[in-house]
Amino acid sequence: MNAARALLATLADAGIDTLFANPGTSEMHLVAALDSVPQVRPVLGLFEGVVTGAADGYARMQRRPAATLLHLGPGLANGLANLHNARRAATPLLNIVGDHATAHVGLNAPLTADIEALARPMSDWVGASPDAAGLPRAGALALARARDANGGVATLRVPADHAWGDAEPVRHAPPSRPRVPVDADALHAAVTALRGGGEHTALLLGGPALDEASLTMAGRVAATTGCRLLLETFPPRLRRGAGVVMPRRLAYRVDAARAQLDGTRHLLLLGAADPASLFAYPGQPGRMAPADASRIDLGGRDAAAHQTLEALVDALGCAREPTGTASALRPPAPSGALTADAVAASVAHLLPPEAIVVDEATTAGAALYKATAGAPPHDWLALTGGSIGQGLPLAVGAQLAGPDRPVLCVHGDGGAMYTLQALWTLARERLPVVVVIVSNRRYAILDMELDALGGGGYPCGRALFDLSRPALDWVQLARGHGVAAVRADDADGFHAALARALSAGEPTLIEAVTARG
Amino acid sequence: MNAARALLATLADAGIDTLFANPGTSEMHLVAALDSVPQVRPVLGLFEGVVTGAADGYARMQRRPAATLLHLGPGLANGLANLHNARRAATPLLNIVGDHATAHVGLNAPLTADIEALARPMSDWVGASPDAAGLPRAGALALARARDANGGVATLRVPADHAWGDAEPVRHAPPSRPRVPVDADALHAAVTALRGGGEHTALLLGGPALDEASLTMAGRVAATTGCRLLLETFPPRLRRGAGVVMPRRLAYRVDAARAQLDGTRHLLLLGAADPASLFAYPGQPGRMAPADASRIDLGGRDAAAHQTLEALVDALGCAREPTGTASALRPPAPSGALTADAVAASVAHLLPPEAIVVDEATTAGAALYKATAGAPPHDWLALTGGSIGQGLPLAVGAQLAGPDRPVLCVHGDGGAMYTLQALWTLARERLPVVVVIVSNRRYAILDMELDALGGGGYPCGRALFDLSRPALDWVQLARGHGVAAVRADDADGFHAALARALSAGEPTLIEAVTARG
Repeated sequence: MNAARALLATLADAGIDTLFANPGTSEMHLVAALDSVPQVRPVLGLFEGVVTGAADGYARMQRRPAATLLHLGPGLANGLANLHNARRAATPLLNIVGDHATAHVGLNAPLTADIEALARPMSDWVGASPDAAGLPRAGALALARARDANGGVATLRVPADHAWGDAEPVRHAPPSRPRVPVDADALHAAVTALRGGGEHTALLLGGPALDEASLTMAGRVAATTGCRLLLETFPPRLRRGAGVVMPRRLAYRVDAARAQLDGTRHLLLLGAADPASLFAYPGQPGRMAPADASRIDLGGRDAAAHQTLEALVDALGCAREPTGTASALRPPAPSGALTADAVAASVAHLLPPEAIVVDEATTAGAALYKATAGAPPHDWLALTGGSIGQGLPLAVGAQLAGPDRPVLCVHGDGGAMYTLQALWTLARERLPVVVVIVSNRRYAILDMELDALGGGGYPCGRALFDLSRPALDWVQLARGHGVAAVRADDADGFHAALARALSAGEPTLIEAVTARG
Repeated sequence: MNAARALLATLADAGIDTLFANPGTSEMHLVAALDSVPQVRPVLGLFEGVVTGAADGYARMQRRPAATLLHLGPGLANGLANLHNARRAATPLLNIVGDHATAHVGLNAPLTADIEALARPMSDWVGASPDAAGLPRAGALALARARDANGGVATLRVPADHAWGDAEPVRHAPPSRPRVPVDADALHAAVTALRGGGEHTALLLGGPALDEASLTMAGRVAATTGCRLLLETFPPRLRRGAGVVMPRRLAYRVDAARAQLDGTRHLLLLGAADPASLFAYPGQPGRMAPADASRIDLGGRDAAAHQTLEALVDALGCAREPTGTASALRPPAPSGALTADAVAASVAHLLPPEAIVVDEATTAGAALYKATAGAPPHDWLALTGGSIGQGLPLAVGAQLAGPDRPVLCVHGDGGAMYTLQALWTLARERLPVVVVIVSNRRYAILDMELDALGGGGYPCGRALFDLSRPALDWVQLARGHGVAAVRADDADGFHAALARALSAGEPTLIEAVTARG
């Protein structure tokens, strides 16, 4: 068979069932091979940032790799921003990037570009097939790299002549590196710190330590030692809601995060890095924990977090019951003006059990996170790499991964514009995602940052953060992509629209206009 | 003053008057500095592919650099595809990419990425400011690199602490490399070949040889020697229309291009590379000219093309009058079904004098190009790097560069989706561009490529090229961005809509539905 088909068969055999794709001529043999390998479902995105973001969402929810199919260097380039986010989330993700046939690269045809150089900054592993016969094995190897530890981004360049040559599928998946067990000295130091007085010890949890079992164990450690439990600011996937142990989330604002970490003598890091502010500011330190606090590294994004928490629980002889579980509590339905708080209250009032919440609400995100703390248990997917325009694609992938779960995406208007083409994939795949666009008609977070400079109003500079002239009409944007949509201007209207959308069974967008006049 | 202001003042002094921007917190001091340097007009794009593509369009029409302002690695990544196109066009373009403050990079904050590594594959020059005091000079140097020869893409990384430190503007612009004069041996070989029998000699012209004066000189060479005049398939900016020398454009289809080049013994290349097919195909050579034809390289994208043509004219003692000028000829207004030919006929019938035509019409492009050959003189901007989604941003920049010229952008629906956010910038800046979306509701060119594989219908693979379920509604998409829009389903309706749009004085989109049933 041709190598394109052998590659797809190899990947299908190794568990790849979905291929998020925006292919072109150099990938044509891989496209044709889809008809021979029906185990792999292709999902089309009309822009590559949709493709990579959707693969990220799928893999975060399935906890196994999704694959993408991208068209040469420029196609990969369009997908890089959301690969950056995926890599920061330690998402297992395999990119297949078609290239010109080997003999064609030197001819300097218009689409020629250095694909591997482009891929490297946003990939954990980059490689290429050696020849047609070696393509399936190269694919299996790349997939193994995507599955290393908790996951990573692996990018495989596939020259067109390799895809159209002959090969046989590979049946034995190469091994992946296991999760990294905790360093014994670090574990000992952590136990010593926790025994010595929990009130000066903080356990900061990140990505691989945010499933319910891990949180419960962390809560038992806190119950026994009195340590503080903290959570990284941008968790890739967090279990939360009524009955779930709820660490305090590290604030986005530097001063607030510093206050949360004030008095910490021992900072235990599990699945999280020593926290730094998102941006640097003149005369301000970048680290948010006290400089004199000891950092105890229990493992980063590759950590075997579950086993580490088990080891802590055992060593400390922890109580059976955790502290810090969230109480069931829903706010009343809001009324009056439509504000970020009102949006948050409606969501928290109505959020169905087992929802997946995709949060790229930016300046409206803090209120949303707080209000939903006592809602029925749900999964929360945050913007992990700071590159806006992840939310809509993430919701596509999350809904494909969890077809029976309600998916709610709450998104700022500025960020949603980067990958609005995701709406079309929602319509095409009939994915009943509810999208709430919080439309303040500004890059509001940048307004805050400009204010923080002091020294004036900067009317010319500030105009770059103004999305009101003309106002984006999200109802028409959604309908243009084939998605039903409605606009809400007050809290009652928004609440009613959200209730309807959550039971509509089809993709629905609500533009929540929070802009003032 | 702070270095951000000193940098902008330096660039303004050196001729930068427009800054296409999508900034964030790491560029905040540059944003604030805009209020102190009013000579630089900021233009906001809601996605970085709009920003870089608009800068390309501006610079192609002004024939001098535009600048961009981009946000860290992911912001640059989003702009890379259109930088790829700009680089292929040899467009003079300066990117300013903000980075974290120097001390912050090592802290692994979420948005950290290797900006210079990302920039390199799509830039002719990449650098960074050495410190705050050196930032203005680094900017002047980068601008000089963007101005080397006919132009190139220069990318400057600016750490935030350099922007907020102190510096003074630089008043002396560093020198740029001049255009590369023709090699004397190559010129001699070209003259010999042309004297020896023009019927077996072809002069292939590219980017820097496509202004009217160059074309006239090439036409005089053809008049004297009988050589064939050819034009690269994807010219960055081509002067054409009634009275202008019209080389034959090399066909996109490999078999057609081979037929055009058949019998060539000497291929003279000026501003163009030895032509290769856009993609490779099994068992087909990638070069389109006969293997045994001699290639005579009169200079590539950096060539001093005008002087080279003057030297040819002088050496050959050319006739005063060129051959091959296009006759004034407009087709009649079309009627009946709306096809690509009907769209082309309407455009050719109505095209105003001195129009700028932005062509990303893909499968509808050949008819459009042919029909407009005898229209009043105009400039034609093609998709230079094969990375679709260039047309709408290019039109933004072209209209800003030529505010008094009619700008018409004819775009395939599939490609237009990659950077549709450009519509908002048209509305915000009140740019009276007329956008025609040729809506066949397919990636039609990929359908053709899949057919060329033979072997079956590939229903599963082919579904990846189907944009009809659901159909994109371009009227709503445009209105959602604040742009007036209308749909046309037949030739008469399209013709009337185009006539109205061309005199509307505001941005207008026409969705020309050519999809069957």
